[in-house]
Amino acid sequence: MVSAPVVLGLDFGGTKIAIAVAELSGRRLGTTTIESRDGGDAAEALARGLTSAHELLAEVAPGQALAGVGAATLGIPYDDRVELAPTFPGWGELPFGRLIRDAFPGVPVRLATDVKAAAAAELRWGELTGCDPGLYVNLGTGLAIAIVAGGTVITGANGASGEIGYNLRTAADVWTEPAGRTILEHVVSGQALETTGSARLGRPVTAADVFTMARTEPDAAVLTEQFSRELALHLANLTIALDPARIVVGGGLVRSWDQLETGLRRALDAAVPFPPDLAVARFPADAPLIGALALGVEAAGAVLGAHAFGQL
Amino acid sequence: MVSAPVVLGLDFGGTKIAIAVAELSGRRLGTTTIESRDGGDAAEALARGLTSAHELLAEVAPGQALAGVGAATLGIPYDDRVELAPTFPGWGELPFGRLIRDAFPGVPVRLATDVKAAAAAELRWGELTGCDPGLYVNLGTGLAIAIVAGGTVITGANGASGEIGYNLRTAADVWTEPAGRTILEHVVSGQALETTGSARLGRPVTAADVFTMARTEPDAAVLTEQFSRELALHLANLTIALDPARIVVGGGLVRSWDQLETGLRRALDAAVPFPPDLAVARFPADAPLIGALALGVEAAGAVLGAHAFGQL
Repeated sequence: MVSAPVVLGLDFGGTKIAIAVAELSGRRLGTTTIESRDGGDAAEALARGLTSAHELLAEVAPGQALAGVGAATLGIPYDDRVELAPTFPGWGELPFGRLIRDAFPGVPVRLATDVKAAAAAELRWGELTGCDPGLYVNLGTGLAIAIVAGGTVITGANGASGEIGYNLRTAADVWTEPAGRTILEHVVSGQALETTGSARLGRPVTAADVFTMARTEPDAAVLTEQFSRELALHLANLTIALDPARIVVGGGLVRSWDQLETGLRRALDAAVPFPPDLAVARFPADAPLIGALALGVEAAGAVLGAHAFGQL
Repeated sequence: MVSAPVVLGLDFGGTKIAIAVAELSGRRLGTTTIESRDGGDAAEALARGLTSAHELLAEVAPGQALAGVGAATLGIPYDDRVELAPTFPGWGELPFGRLIRDAFPGVPVRLATDVKAAAAAELRWGELTGCDPGLYVNLGTGLAIAIVAGGTVITGANGASGEIGYNLRTAADVWTEPAGRTILEHVVSGQALETTGSARLGRPVTAADVFTMARTEPDAAVLTEQFSRELALHLANLTIALDPARIVVGGGLVRSWDQLETGLRRALDAAVPFPPDLAVARFPADAPLIGALALGVEAAGAVLGAHAFGQL
């Protein structure tokens, strides 16, 4: 009897590295998590992650062939570097893709940003299944989206599609470098709401706190109204451009979904010729890790023939 | 000897219906043009177009098999109707796709808006060849874009992707119906520039006139600066979301390309993490007709195997 092949998913976050092994159907065989910065530099963190991955494979899938590896990371991953990952010193200089390929010789590997990986998870096993096109929105510490079309996540010519945190906010921002203007992410993100919330309310609060207080406190309600309005502006225009079947929202701020949904729904209905569905992601918690598994299945499928694989 | 198969392209515009027959390589065998409104209603105009198409096929490709039909139209075409085509009374109620399929029984047919057809022309034979993703921008009487990814033009879940003429302009527009706000197309389009230009300059001028006068007259320069700034805002944000390899601009306003290019180039370089190429379309004049031929080739390819066909 031949054992079934498996895939490996790696999610390199700013604080944790999450690792999972699954069957091609997505059925999880094992998961492990290690600290990203538990002593040592970026290169050592990546090496520890790869060692843990080998250990997990040996433990939960002994003798089973590794058919594909998916790796998600903060920043934009390439074979020889990681772009836009300033929050983890040294991470940008790692030959990210090459180190992962070297650790699993001959195994097809697919890389993605954490948000694109999350979108891949929703496309294969979650709320974006069958959506063509579809839009994934990550409302977390930062802000980014991913566009799904033709059964895959659009990477972009430079791997940088979806980084709408850099968006211009008004016509006055045109012809100005990001450093000379307030980029969208500095107004619409969990981090932004935490900062403005703490300043306005005079004590340290989280973004979720601000949404909770907005139910009763006008000072907080002003902030969440501004937040929703500006988020809706950019999502409505993206929706007009793409005409997605559905918009799926993930990331930490979906804890305040009951308050976010109403404003977004009304904005889409008012602005968009054909308003799409709007839904919370199926995998709000560990979407990038599940996405890394989805990327592993995609990588395996590109070699073995994609239609051999079922859905979760 | 078996004759080579041919494709038919139909472009239904507001004033003209253009028809062409070509080989699968794109080599044109014949073209004819008739007036859209030369007596009779919308149904009669479509019927006259289809009769002319049959005559053209009999004349330039006698005995050659028709392998595919592509049809471009103002508005968004479906089998049973055309949406967003208010400028041609009766056009919206036509069972557009069905009438075309009925006219060519058994032949694969592909429908698209005129702007998506133009993008298909650029993707197959023009300046978007090999771009994944790529962005086509139509600056004509109206304003629209088309997104190219995975070797095809993204249609959208309702055929409505790219209709950025409906875009919201500021956060104040959120939660307001299109009728209650100034949509982007009413500010950024050939028609808009003609209207504001004629009002400000006190005599009837075309959009091209305004750009020409802007070289020497401050009153006109203010208008083109506003136009470029607001166009750049929306294209920069789209570019950040998509990360295209290249942006290709077509439509009547490319006659003023030397003045438009500088502002767009500077805006993209300032705003976008990975600024794309920016180029004028290869087919500025009859792009929708050439696009209809490209759609015909696509339709034929879906049946016969796309890789059998060469490039123009």
